[in-house]
This record gives sequence, C-alpha cells and structure tokens, in this order.
Amino acid sequence: MRRLVLSSLLASTMCVGAASADPLRETALTVFAPLPAAAPQIAMNSATPEKVSLGAALFFDPRLSASGVFSCYSCHNLTTGGDDNMETSVGHGWQKGPRNSPTVFNSVLNIAQFWDGRAADLAEQAKGPVQAAVEMANTPENVIATLSSMPQYVEWFSAAFPEQKEPVNFENMAKAIEVFEATLLTPAPFDAWLAGDDKAMNADQLAGLQLFIDKGCTSCHSGVNLGGQGYYPFGLIEKPGAEILPRDDKGRFAVTETVDDEYVFRAAPLRNVAVTAPYFHSGKVWDLGIAVEIMAESQLGEELKPEETAKIVAFLDALTGTVPQVTLPVLPAETSSTPRPITAILP
Amino acid sequence: MRRLVLSSLLASTMCVGAASADPLRETALTVFAPLPAAAPQIAMNSATPEKVSLGAALFFDPRLSASGVFSCYSCHNLTTGGDDNMETSVGHGWQKGPRNSPTVFNSVLNIAQFWDGRAADLAEQAKGPVQAAVEMANTPENVIATLSSMPQYVEWFSAAFPEQKEPVNFENMAKAIEVFEATLLTPAPFDAWLAGDDKAMNADQLAGLQLFIDKGCTSCHSGVNLGGQGYYPFGLIEKPGAEILPRDDKGRFAVTETVDDEYVFRAAPLRNVAVTAPYFHSGKVWDLGIAVEIMAESQLGEELKPEETAKIVAFLDALTGTVPQVTLPVLPAETSSTPRPITAILP
Repeated sequence: MRRLVLSSLLASTMCVGAASADPLRETALTVFAPLPAAAPQIAMNSATPEKVSLGAALFFDPRLSASGVFSCYSCHNLTTGGDDNMETSVGHGWQKGPRNSPTVFNSVLNIAQFWDGRAADLAEQAKGPVQAAVEMANTPENVIATLSSMPQYVEWFSAAFPEQKEPVNFENMAKAIEVFEATLLTPAPFDAWLAGDDKAMNADQLAGLQLFIDKGCTSCHSGVNLGGQGYYPFGLIEKPGAEILPRDDKGRFAVTETVDDEYVFRAAPLRNVAVTAPYFHSGKVWDLGIAVEIMAESQLGEELKPEETAKIVAFLDALTGTVPQVTLPVLPAETSSTPRPITAILP
Repeated sequence: MRRLVLSSLLASTMCVGAASADPLRETALTVFAPLPAAAPQIAMNSATPEKVSLGAALFFDPRLSASGVFSCYSCHNLTTGGDDNMETSVGHGWQKGPRNSPTVFNSVLNIAQFWDGRAADLAEQAKGPVQAAVEMANTPENVIATLSSMPQYVEWFSAAFPEQKEPVNFENMAKAIEVFEATLLTPAPFDAWLAGDDKAMNADQLAGLQLFIDKGCTSCHSGVNLGGQGYYPFGLIEKPGAEILPRDDKGRFAVTETVDDEYVFRAAPLRNVAVTAPYFHSGKVWDLGIAVEIMAESQLGEELKPEETAKIVAFLDALTGTVPQVTLPVLPAETSSTPRPITAILP
C-alpha cells in the first residue's frame, strides 16, 4: 500500500465520526477502516478515464497469454468473487499453479500482492502471471508485439499515457491494469454498519464481530481489508497438517531468505471471504467454518465452540460486498502481424 | 431458424421501404435482410427479463464445466467478436476441439447450429459443449447438482420458469442460455445502408457488395446473416488442400450419413467475419483476403484480381457490428453441497 495516496481512505474514515455512540463500533473503528468511497489514487500512476478503460481492456484480453486462452479475468473472475474458486488455478498446458488465486476485489488496499507479498503493488503483480510458465506463459516481448499489432491498442495506450513517445510497453500495460483493478471495490454491510447504520448487520453478525475482536483475530486481520496488511507465521501456535500447509512451500522465506520467514504468509484479506472458497494458500479447505476453526487453533491456540464459529462466520458474511457494475470492453481485432496463439508447452 | 417467430424480422425488412431508390440497394434487399431491431422471440421459449438474466448468468458461469475453468464465454468471448480467435478451441485437459468456434453474435438467426447444423437451435447447441469430453467435459447430472446446490440459482430458475415445479433442469439451462444469446445482435453499417443511409458504407464497400453479388457469393451467403442458412459442399468446384479441408472431417455427412453430404458444411454466416479470424471449420486461414480467394476458387472456380479481393474484404468490414453492452452478472457462491472442480482427464 506504500504507493497509495491515503487521502480518500482518511476522508472516508473521518466522515463516520457522526455515527451514534456504540462501544462495539467505537472499538471496531480503532481496529478496522471502512472501504474508501472511490478508487484510491496511486502515486506515480494517476488514474484517468482513458487509462482505466485501457486497463479494463487488458484485464479481459486473453491475448495477454501465449495460448490466447487466459486473461487476468480467467483466475480473477469478476462474476465469482474476483477469484476462480479452485484449489489452485489451471494455466498454460493444464498446469496447476502453486497457490490459490486471491480475489482481485479491494486488492489495491493490500500492503503488497501475492500470498508472500513479493509484489509491492498491483502493477508489479500484473507482470507475474503474464510471464509465469504455469499461468499465461507469455513474454513481455510477445505481449508488446501483440498489443502493438493492433492500431486501436496503440491509440488507447497513447491516450492513457499522452506524455510518452512509445507508450506501448510492458510497464504501462501493468500500470493500466492497476488503475482498472483499483476501481474494483466492494462496499459491504460491515462498511454501512461502521458508518452508523445499525441495521446493516444483524445480532449474530455483531456477536461474531465481538468474538472476532475478543478472540484476537484482529491481531492479523485488521485495517480496511481485515488482513492483507502484514505477514505472520501460518501455525503460530500449532502448525496445521501438511495437507493444508504443504512443507515445500515456505511462503515469505522465498522472498526474504530469512529463517524467521519460513511458513510466513501475508494475512489473508477477509473481504468477500464467504464467496471465495476454497481457503488458505493451498486452497485445501472449502468450508468457511472449518477455516475459521483451523485459524483459531493454529494461530490462537483456541478451540472454538460451534456457536462461536457460527457467529464469526455470520460476521464474515457481512464482509461480502456489492460488486461494481462492469461492462465488457470490446477489444481490437487481430491484424496480419499479430502473433498467433501458442498452445504448445515449451520446456 | 425454424423456431424463430419471424414477425420482427419481417417488420424491420418492411420499414426500409422508404429508402431512396438505388438499384444496388434494391437488389441487396432481395438477397439480404437487415438485422432485427430486437432479439427475435423463439417459439416454445418466450423471453422474459428473468429468463434472459438467468441465461446471462449461466453463459458466464465456469461451473458449467467439470473443471470450473470454462464457461460458454470462454470460447464465445463477447470481447473478441463472440468467438475465441483460435484455430480450434482449447478445452478440458488442454485438449483441442475438432472445429473452429463460431461467433455467438447473431447466431440465433442461423437456420441451425454448429458447422454441420447438427443442433436445430441454440438451446440444443448449448447442451453440446457442456458435455463434450474435449470441451467442458461435464454431465447433465453434475450440472444440475451444481446449480441446485446454490439457492440463488434455484430462485432464478423458479422466476424464469414460474409454471414449473422442478425448474432446475438441463433443458431449462439450455433454454435460458438461448434467450440470452438471442439478445446478442450486432447491427452493422451494412444494416444502416440497407435501411437507406447512403453514407453508412463507402465507395469501396459498395463496390465490394456489387462484386459479392455479381460473382455469386450470394448463392450461399445470403439472408440476414449472409450465410448460416443452408448447406453446401466445401470445394464445390475445386477442393482446397487437406490442410484447410482435412479429409477426416466429412462435415454434414456425420449428421445425415448421406454420401451427398460428404464435406458439406453450413455456409459460414459472415456478420463480424472481419473480427473472427481464423477462418473455415479448420481455422487454418488467418487472413480474410486469402479466405475470400480460397472461397472464390473452390466454390466459384474464379480467380479474383487483388483489387477485387480488396473490395470484397472492404464490404465484409461493413458487416462488423456494434456489440451490445453486456454487464457482467454476479454469480451465486458455492455451498457445501456444490460438486468440486474436477480437473482430471477421465478416460
């Protein structure tokens, strides 16, 4: 989140000051923050309508993949919670990705991207799957050859980056996708409640919120995204089984090469968690209640009573937001110089 | 097209009667028909807003496939001309389909569906890819188990088929998809010109239309979709090479088992042809000019001059239509009883 300009976040936090006095809400407001009302501005990557439109086109364009089969939308499907509802995604050559695809919704508000935070922001993130051999299996050169071959794309890049002489480049592709993705915010009943609407959450959901705070879930799951802000060992108190925490994926250790970071992951942001099963980086748990119980045991050393689990799940349901209306772009047609799809699996 | 109620087609044909007298237009109106202004009503499958919405949801839902990877939209991508711009589609297990995916746009106006016309209408068509082992690799039972597991889908089916006690069934899935797809009409400059707008097509496009008629292309490519209305041998005068016309795909012969139907295919509908490369059922030709030349030689025994080809291509460009605005649906989330994705390739 380093590159976010925080004014819109702070503004929306401050404007709930008038909410009726309620100890739970007062506590919640010290721990969480409501979703900003509009896409946050990103430092060094200001949003313009032209850039957002270009980003939307790129997000939906399967020709960013070598095969022409996968777009960003394939694994970050805006119709199904902003992810793909698979343990791990299927990519080029029917290969499986190593970790569960996180939702793109509200992802601009995370401190960094990927389960291990290896990308500082969404622009850096966007470059990863395009090039990953098990995902879109493309190269920056082939992507730029593809986009440059279509005059409409060249016009769109020029309009989105008017100060640049050669705007069609991999960096700008990523920046345009970033500003589009920054618009994908899903305000939830929890935000309405934080803003003072007592009826936005029911009694079970409020009891679940109280438990969420009292049990200590907020130690990792706080802030605007209820997670996505810091890195914590998975299995702080007790490591879950290898099925859920595979021993060969050491998480953030691969980024920092620090022993302290073995099996450390970015705390999952919890907005829309109820509609983005399966859970954890391994994607091995499909039931939200079971995921909550595993978290309580492994991170807090606590065995939840069934009614406690149910209330926390009810609270998490209040984080399911309203998906913004997205109209499908109409993409430029290929020309004679557009590279053709490559479905072969290269060694 | 047997099940289409033709009133809307006829109405839109008749209302162009006031167009200024122009011999080319008068001839064209005897051969072609403008696109209807609204989705045609389908006999035995009346469209309601609820049914269209359900159909849109199903069209975009990757959970219609066994793997959870493919939806109707995957191969009939509304951002790229209503098809997938691949020789043949990639499906379950990275298998390749046997024939090029046709565009879904305006497909409701074809006499029948698939390259060999083996499905009488879009409802029958929709059931094919869902079950094909090389496409979505699913079963009707698993599809219905999937849809029935999500209460929101059950509500939507009830609203779309209010007279039925058990509306969540495979037939209704197909019918809902059909009425959604029937809305995917793309009015083109050619339609505006047919309706009397002299400026909707330029001189090259009009010269191309004249050539298209004079050379005899209209023998197969006529009607509202400039094709899609009848069955003809590919290679009537001279068979193209096996690369373009593979010897082991005998076309409509597989449907009728009549020797006369060997290498017979439904004439390709030509709306949006300029944005739906590659061409022919084999998908082996990427250049529209070359496709036009192959057609002239194989079907008409005619070698076109380069300037003739260019003009016919210019005319075909006037068939690229305006894509309707489609807002992505928000799909129901899986529940504990939703069948999980199956990515394994079953024997």
